[in-house]
Amino acid sequence: MSAMVQMARAANTASMALASVPTETKNDLLASLADAIAGASDRIVAANQRDLEAATAAGVTGPKLKRLTLTPGGIAQMADGLRQIAALADPVGQVTREYDVPSGLHVRKVRCPIGVIMMIYEARPNVTIDAFALCFKAGNACILKGGREAQHSNEMLATLAHDCLRKLGLPTAALTLLTTSDREEMKALLALDDAIDLVIPRGGTALIRFVHEHSRIPTVQHFHGVCHIFVDRDADLDKALTICVTAKTSAPATCNAAEAVLVDASMAETFVPKLVSGLIDAGVEVRGDETVCRLANEATSADADDWGREFLDLIMAVRVVPGLDDAIEHIHRYGSNHTDAIITENQVTADAFTQRVHSSCTMVNASTRFNDGFQLGLGAEIGISTTKIHAYGPMGLEELTTQRFVVAGSGQHR
Amino acid sequence: MSAMVQMARAANTASMALASVPTETKNDLLASLADAIAGASDRIVAANQRDLEAATAAGVTGPKLKRLTLTPGGIAQMADGLRQIAALADPVGQVTREYDVPSGLHVRKVRCPIGVIMMIYEARPNVTIDAFALCFKAGNACILKGGREAQHSNEMLATLAHDCLRKLGLPTAALTLLTTSDREEMKALLALDDAIDLVIPRGGTALIRFVHEHSRIPTVQHFHGVCHIFVDRDADLDKALTICVTAKTSAPATCNAAEAVLVDASMAETFVPKLVSGLIDAGVEVRGDETVCRLANEATSADADDWGREFLDLIMAVRVVPGLDDAIEHIHRYGSNHTDAIITENQVTADAFTQRVHSSCTMVNASTRFNDGFQLGLGAEIGISTTKIHAYGPMGLEELTTQRFVVAGSGQHR
Repeated sequence: MSAMVQMARAANTASMALASVPTETKNDLLASLADAIAGASDRIVAANQRDLEAATAAGVTGPKLKRLTLTPGGIAQMADGLRQIAALADPVGQVTREYDVPSGLHVRKVRCPIGVIMMIYEARPNVTIDAFALCFKAGNACILKGGREAQHSNEMLATLAHDCLRKLGLPTAALTLLTTSDREEMKALLALDDAIDLVIPRGGTALIRFVHEHSRIPTVQHFHGVCHIFVDRDADLDKALTICVTAKTSAPATCNAAEAVLVDASMAETFVPKLVSGLIDAGVEVRGDETVCRLANEATSADADDWGREFLDLIMAVRVVPGLDDAIEHIHRYGSNHTDAIITENQVTADAFTQRVHSSCTMVNASTRFNDGFQLGLGAEIGISTTKIHAYGPMGLEELTTQRFVVAGSGQHR
Repeated sequence: MSAMVQMARAANTASMALASVPTETKNDLLASLADAIAGASDRIVAANQRDLEAATAAGVTGPKLKRLTLTPGGIAQMADGLRQIAALADPVGQVTREYDVPSGLHVRKVRCPIGVIMMIYEARPNVTIDAFALCFKAGNACILKGGREAQHSNEMLATLAHDCLRKLGLPTAALTLLTTSDREEMKALLALDDAIDLVIPRGGTALIRFVHEHSRIPTVQHFHGVCHIFVDRDADLDKALTICVTAKTSAPATCNAAEAVLVDASMAETFVPKLVSGLIDAGVEVRGDETVCRLANEATSADADDWGREFLDLIMAVRVVPGLDDAIEHIHRYGSNHTDAIITENQVTADAFTQRVHSSCTMVNASTRFNDGFQLGLGAEIGISTTKIHAYGPMGLEELTTQRFVVAGSGQHR
């Protein structure tokens, strides 16, 4: 048995035990890990420093280096996150439906863990703790394959988690940190569909494609976000302007940042110049269609492949469309099923938009940036699924469980 | 563009339109199809006759030939099934959660169709109508790949459905019947993950393995059922006997038939002889472990591979186990996550069993044969999922949808 298979089997055995750990014990673990992380802040920063030095030596700069960085403030936030997850309701054992059927059987649908969840992600070391905490609270064992760049940070965090698990007599295989980046080893892992129940790839398109292509295990993909805002003819233009600008500028490299604004032709002459100068004043490069460039000459001309592009940068595509139907058609064609918003004061138009656009999240008069587990009241999230199967949109604790039938009878046969 | 890609694209376009068809129109279609099928009973029987002749000529006999056969009674049942599905609540648009978050956003989780569902199944032509009706009512387009043996029957049924769709101005690509059995064409289809959203293979292990191996589209598997009944030391032995015998004999070739009985050692001397003679009197061959063979010499000795085997026939494996823990361990090792039952009057034991056995359905004091969408109150089912992702257990209308977030604000940005 190869080391990979052995590791996956150990995770599977751990998952059997984790499925029936009492809520209180799970919360104790999360609280003790929060304390351990807060108490080891200096050591975590030191481990992270080694990753940062290696990354800098390898020429990594800008947002990527920033994502890799753990500050004492960030570490305190990680600990807070654990306490928040401890405070959330335990989904395991929740009865989601309960009813009797004519044969006299009493039927319950009960939430239960999925089993072993493998997550494959890039840089950000805080994901290691978030993912473990969410999987663990939902009764699952997790196999975490973080980015190589974060290796020392991740190892330090995993060691702290293992210490806490050990102290409470819980299996350390509840968290397996994978350090291999060998493609052949990854392929071998992705074939272990009898030991691993779900794979969640979260990161760049190349990573997700690799997993999708080689996995025999079900995957829930957290693909890129090409988020649109449609400014309808009945929009409040002040709201529209603020939302369009901040949805790009507040965190341009996130998946819920807006990448394109579609403007209804009937008020384009009024709104487009305001929008373009608002964006440019905020430091955003505007790539417009012909009409946009005519109405606001600070805009540069968009290329065909700027539509449907995730810029992840201070760049916004802007297009004028004849109306609602064309906006929806544009979103169907270029969107990514992540988040799309309409700005309108017309309820009928808003309803038509949210009914016909089938993204994981549609917003009316709110920024696309609110598509996030915490903002949408899930407490925390492991990512945002753009796969319609199993979970669609932000995935929290409930989405890391499945539901099974538990039926009580009194001797029924057929 | 190949014919396959063109066909999948047409289904995808149809799915966009189907997502917003009013409930009333969907129910009208189902009712008119019920009438059309009832009215065309003779023609359906004639088409089926051609399939039966070809199958007989090819040497098909027994249960397989029976599954292929459509009688006037079976056709009337198919029409009834359509009327029952029309009477079920429309899942599309159902709000499953609704709440406000601190930012003032109003959040709703809304059921929506999955999109395009491809189902691959064997012989039984009635599945063609059941699968179309369930997919359609849940707002999905479906691509149905039935068994070659049922080709004429399936074509007749699809023609009736297309006529009804056309009369109501609905896209006929709501139902695409595939007649190819070419493996290369199937592989090409299973790669079309941008047009097809879900694949449901339902049939033998070889079929499911083929789909699982080649699909880049998410699959929900309807695998075999190796269902167990554990007769606990606190069982009511009369109930136990009746359930064990009927769970095998009432429909031995179905996936929810019991394949193995585990008997607690403490009452084995009393119960095993009764069980074995009860099974043998009902025409069932009993394959027992050493203890069973000693207690009841009509039993034959089980081979190692009789444990975990889906006999699909009048054969039952019987084993004596020291107690609950061993029964659970046996089920973890040999079960198939389908249906497992315990017979006990002890509530604590029953709870331990249903908590620790993670099959899609666990039964207390009831036959495994009740794991069925209709019996469990879903109205109808497209099959029973043994995949934990997306849906686990019988899949009805709700399980053919997904849920997305629809968020209403008043200008919120961040």
